[in-house]
Order: sequence, then structure tokens, then C-alpha cells
Amino acid sequence: MAKIAIMGFGTVGSGVLEVCRRNAASISRRAGEPVEVKYILDVRDFSASPDAALFTNDINTILNDPEIKVVVETIGGTKFAYPYVKQCLQSGRSVCTSNKEMVATYGAELLGLAREHGCAFLFEASVGGGTPIITPIHQCLAANTITAVQGIVNGTTNFMLTKMKRENMGFDEALKIAQQLGYAETKDPGDDVDGRDACRKIAILSSLCFGRHVYPQNIPTRGIRDITVQDVQAAEKLDCAIKLIVWSRKNKDGSIAAAVEPMLVPFGNQLAGVDDVFNAVLVKGDMLGDVVFYGKGAGKLPTASAVVADVIDALKNGAAVHDSLFWQPAQPAEGQFRNEEYAPAYVRVNGLNGAVLQTIYGKGSVMFEQDGQCAYLAEQSNDSGLEQAAAKVQALGGSVALVLKKLAD
Amino acid sequence: MAKIAIMGFGTVGSGVLEVCRRNAASISRRAGEPVEVKYILDVRDFSASPDAALFTNDINTILNDPEIKVVVETIGGTKFAYPYVKQCLQSGRSVCTSNKEMVATYGAELLGLAREHGCAFLFEASVGGGTPIITPIHQCLAANTITAVQGIVNGTTNFMLTKMKRENMGFDEALKIAQQLGYAETKDPGDDVDGRDACRKIAILSSLCFGRHVYPQNIPTRGIRDITVQDVQAAEKLDCAIKLIVWSRKNKDGSIAAAVEPMLVPFGNQLAGVDDVFNAVLVKGDMLGDVVFYGKGAGKLPTASAVVADVIDALKNGAAVHDSLFWQPAQPAEGQFRNEEYAPAYVRVNGLNGAVLQTIYGKGSVMFEQDGQCAYLAEQSNDSGLEQAAAKVQALGGSVALVLKKLAD
Repeated sequence: MAKIAIMGFGTVGSGVLEVCRRNAASISRRAGEPVEVKYILDVRDFSASPDAALFTNDINTILNDPEIKVVVETIGGTKFAYPYVKQCLQSGRSVCTSNKEMVATYGAELLGLAREHGCAFLFEASVGGGTPIITPIHQCLAANTITAVQGIVNGTTNFMLTKMKRENMGFDEALKIAQQLGYAETKDPGDDVDGRDACRKIAILSSLCFGRHVYPQNIPTRGIRDITVQDVQAAEKLDCAIKLIVWSRKNKDGSIAAAVEPMLVPFGNQLAGVDDVFNAVLVKGDMLGDVVFYGKGAGKLPTASAVVADVIDALKNGAAVHDSLFWQPAQPAEGQFRNEEYAPAYVRVNGLNGAVLQTIYGKGSVMFEQDGQCAYLAEQSNDSGLEQAAAKVQALGGSVALVLKKLAD
Repeated sequence: MAKIAIMGFGTVGSGVLEVCRRNAASISRRAGEPVEVKYILDVRDFSASPDAALFTNDINTILNDPEIKVVVETIGGTKFAYPYVKQCLQSGRSVCTSNKEMVATYGAELLGLAREHGCAFLFEASVGGGTPIITPIHQCLAANTITAVQGIVNGTTNFMLTKMKRENMGFDEALKIAQQLGYAETKDPGDDVDGRDACRKIAILSSLCFGRHVYPQNIPTRGIRDITVQDVQAAEKLDCAIKLIVWSRKNKDGSIAAAVEPMLVPFGNQLAGVDDVFNAVLVKGDMLGDVVFYGKGAGKLPTASAVVADVIDALKNGAAVHDSLFWQPAQPAEGQFRNEEYAPAYVRVNGLNGAVLQTIYGKGSVMFEQDGQCAYLAEQSNDSGLEQAAAKVQALGGSVALVLKKLAD
């Protein structure tokens, strides 16, 4: 009998308990022994719960019990989760978490601690909800050098962009529906719509794929607030969907480029067809070519089932997993990553017309002119070119409202 | 230093050697030690090869060398592969294979041998080429009960169907191009176009997902020879693509249904957009919902990279993997699986008109009448209904040329 503890009894944490109970037989077979939740750490009052006897508000209850070999962390954030997880790992207990903020910020350190203390630090559920992404990347692609990763990793914004496309809906209306359905936070939806959630996930994927810690603050991050129905329609004319894309690439000189940005995704690209709350991550391996992992990016039971799969892995393999699931510590880079590769770029500008934009952005075509705005598709552009162009736009009394680079086919 | 042997130096076997050498550093890091190919077993003459010193034509060279811990089997077929693999496993050596015929026929026995002798029998490359499918299913979905699996697992036929759709090309012409490009065998393309290759793969996936051996001979298998340009165009009018689908399902009574058949796939289904030589497998988990694994289904280096990932896994985890990668032996069922669930069915019939077909197939609509043929979309049908209808068609002097059931959205 393997005894585990759950820290944080919110949506995912309660899902972990439910999954452990509902699929107890098959989990037991795969783990080699039954898996039982012995403690649940939560500061809130669960005395009326049928599982009241399991609750504790003291981390030491867990740390002092030698029976506990694996701890699930589903508190979220870093204030409590980070010191608790450190203590667990330092005591030789494996930790399985869905906490992307903690992994994106402290992943290298926590992986190092796990190795040092002969236990596992696993976080499959931190990217893609229940969809297997982290494990296939480090295990199944172990014979590949990964050169790039691209994906749609935020279900809320993908749901909104799908609504905007299918129902000619504006951003505000799409957000309202996402909030009504519980996909977006009512109080402050910024983590989703401004791309911060996606940024943490691409930081984790980049660290894993390229072998050294990549920090969220170095990744230029834009969300989807500026996108209008007109932009979506213009994209369709170009046989593209607008998607909030996370991407990361190892340049030939070994440097890394990464970003979170709304992009034009050609219909021929697998990511263009990923709609609603689905997530997909495309990985490019040097031997393998492109592979895509696709599934629902969130949800209580899917996410919890990924955490439980990690628990099984931790029970069976312990620290051995960290031969492949590992990245080196690194200092944050200065400033933000830049992308100097050329690609077509759609720009929507206030206060200037197409003829002027052509002189600024070079060869391209006018998509539409309307209400004092002009949308222009520049044939080739990169970060430096776009910055210089934006300065010229400003000097001429205009302002850049939106930039959408085009993802390769 | 881990020493391995490769049995069979064809496309995949030579790819394994190449991958081991090209990505030696990262493979060494992940395996915890360098991995070196010590022997290559092949009956052909490779004395002019730069690696001539590695070759042997005697399995005993491998079996008598205690340094060899893992053996790669890329001979193909079962005549030599099966007894050799048995000997390797019985001697406690792990085996990693891309041989779908052997796994589909003898999987349960070989998994049992591996467990018994404390070694690993791994076959990620047997389905989906290099695309991770087997490992994510048994490892990452360990906390799920899998209820169904559907996929496109034969790149050759998928390439041909894509050509037929995009270029209004007939079967013969599409086959010729597939042969010219090396995707289809020139001498006898039957393994691909008649669905036998796909059948072996769904047998493996079904065995893995449902926990007991499912035999290819119990799986009704039809290929794509009967599909015409008219069928492809009629499907498009129904917002569907025609795809060679493998599917498998656990019924509520615990029985299994499975088939390989060309189907109408609604554009809303993720599999409809899987084109060219790409493969995709969709798995339904009770906690997780749908996940899809997508990538190129074949190719020397992709497939070889999956074999090498298995080698790393075997070196690190040995027999422990078989707590989750395992299925029970079972006798073949009598006859073939049947599908009594109702679904829309497209039928193309020689010698009868739409009005007659309506009396036979019930409610539905005529898709086209042309050259003495009629294509009819029956609203609801199952295997028994279709059999009875086919008998009636025959009694009236007609014959059924094609049946395409519709996959759920």
C-alpha cells in the first residue's frame, strides 16, 4: 500500500482524490500496489466533508510521517507551494504538481533538489492539462535533438478566438461568454487573455526541450485583447486562422528565441484546426520531424488524471526519471528574446493609409482601410524591422494597433 | 558503456545505428551511460561496409555475449524474428522492436516472457513510426480506463486518399504515384491498400488499451481499392473526408468491437484533417476525454529514433515498465468482431436505383445515380442491417460495390 498526501484541495486536488478512488484497481495494477490518500493539507475548514479525517493544516504532519512517499502539490502560486515542495523534496519525498508558475520559476532548482535527494519532481499536468506532453517529449523523443516547439496552450483564449471566428464576435463579447462558462476568471482574466499563463507554459517547454532554464520574464508576451472581428476576417482571406501561439526555437548559434503572441496560422498548419478549449503542442525533432500532442488543455479530471499518472511514475521509477527529465540552472537573460528571422507580418495602423504603409513596411498588400485604420500585410519582416517601422509610423502621427506575424506552414 | 545488438540491417535497423551515432551525446546522458552497437545480425554480405567488423550471421554470437543487455529486432516478419526474440528474452535480454506483425501475433506471449525473465519487451515503433503512441497510452494515461481508440495508422493509403481528394485522382493513378515515391510496394501493395498493415496496428493498440490479446484475424478488415473519385466527391458534399480508419471499442458488456474500414470522417473530427503520409491516433480515456497523437507514420530515422528511445527505456527501467505495458494472453475469438451500433452509412450499389435502395436501406438520401450505379446515404444502419440489405440487393439482381460508415463527429 502506497500512501500519498495532497497539498491544496481545490479543483485539481479534489480531482486527484476522485481519480484515485474511481480508478483504484487499474492504478493499483500499474503502480504495483494500491495507492491511498492519507492526508490532505488545506488551511480551509473541511470538517463537514466526508473525508474530514484526512485533513490537516500543518505541513509537518506530512513531513513527519515516514509512510508518505509521494506528495501531490495542487495549491497553486508560489508563496506556500514553493517552500512546501522544497521541504518535501529535501526530505526525499517525490512531488507531483500541476503548478506551472512554480515550475516555470523554480523548475531547475526543484529538479536539482529531487536528484540530490533521490526522489522525483514531476509536472506533466503543468502543460496541456491531462494531455500527455512533458513525458512523451523527454522519454519518447529521447533519441532526438529538439529544434523547435510551437503550440496552443491556453484553452480560454483559444475558445474566445474560435468564437470570434465562427460567430463574428468581438473580443469583449467572447470574453463575457468565456467568463459565463467558467473558462475565464471573472475578476481579472489577464492571466489568460494577456498571455501570462501561456508564457509560463512555453517557459517550461523551452527549458525541457533545450536543456537549460528559460525564464518567463525573458519571453516577449502579448495576448489577444487587440484583435478585432476585422482582423479575424482579414486572416481568413489569407487562408489563416488567428491563434495565440507560443513558440520557442534553438538558433544555430545556440541562443534561444521564444515568444507568446497572436499569429496568423496558415490552414495547412496542424495548429490552425485546433479549436475551442483544445490545446496542441507541436515538437520538431531532428530525427523524427514534427509530432503533435492534442487534447483538452484543462478540466478537473483530465488534469488530475495526469497528476495521478505522475504519482504512479514516481512510485515506480523515483529519481531515475531525471536522467531525461532535467534541465540545467541558468540565470535569466538580459531583456527579452528577439526574433530576427523574416516572416510575413500583418500590421493594423491608426492614422496612416496603405500607400504610406507600403513606404514604411516595404513590399506587401493592403488588407483593408476603414475608420481611419489600415491593415497591411508586409511580405517580410523581423523584430528589428518592425520596431523601426513602428518608430516611423509614430513620427508620421500614426500608431500601430496590432502586429500578427505569420507562422510557417 | 551499454552494448547493444541489432538484428536485421534493413531500413530501420540501419537507421538505429545512424541515430545512435548522430545523437550519441544526448542518448548517453539520458541512458545514464554511452550506448554502443556491438553486433549487427544479418545473413546478407556486408563485408564491404565500413562497419563490417560488427556483422555476424549467428544469433549465438549475441546470446553468448554477457555484455549485450538489449537487442534491437528489425528483421520484420515472424519466421526468424519470433524465435530469435524469444531466445533473447529467455536469456534475460531486453528486446526493442518495430515489428508489428510479431507483436500483433505473439505480443502477449513475449510480454509474459519479458516479465518472467526480468527484462523488457518494447515496441513503440510498431505503431505510428516515430510518433509516440504506445508509451503515452500506457504510461501517461495510467490513471484512465480507456474506452475507445480510433486512428489513421497507414501512411500509404492516407497519402493515396489525400491525392484522390485534392487532385480528383482515381485509385490506380494514386497507387502508381505512391509506388513511384516508394510509399507503396511495387510488387504487391496489398499489405497497405487492403488494410492488413493497419489491422496489425489496431490489434496492438486494442490489446494494449483493453488489457487482453486481440488478434488480427478477428478484426474485419477492408482496404481502399473500391473507392472512386465519385465517392470522394460525394463525401465532400457531406462535409466528410474518406479515410482508412482503424477503430476499437470496449462495449458495455465487456466485449470488444474493432475494424479496419474506409469511413466517412466529418470535417469536425480531428482525424479528417490528417493528410498525406501522416498518422494520428485518438484515444478516449474516462477521466481525460480525447487525446490525439499525430506525426509521420513511417520513415527510416523517425522509426529508428522511436526504437532507440525504447532502448534507453529498457536500459533504465528494465522489466518495471511491464506493470503498465502488459496485456493478458487470450484465445482468438470465433469469427470476426461485429459492430451493432447504429450510424449513417453510405452505400454504392450496382444495378438498382435510388427508389429501390430507399425501400431496402430505409430513410436516407440519394447521393448520385450514374452509369447504372446509385450511391445512397442511409440514415441509420449497423452490421446486421447492412448484411440483410446486401442480401436483398442481391435478390433484386444488384450488388453492393462499397459501404462507408460514418465516424462520429
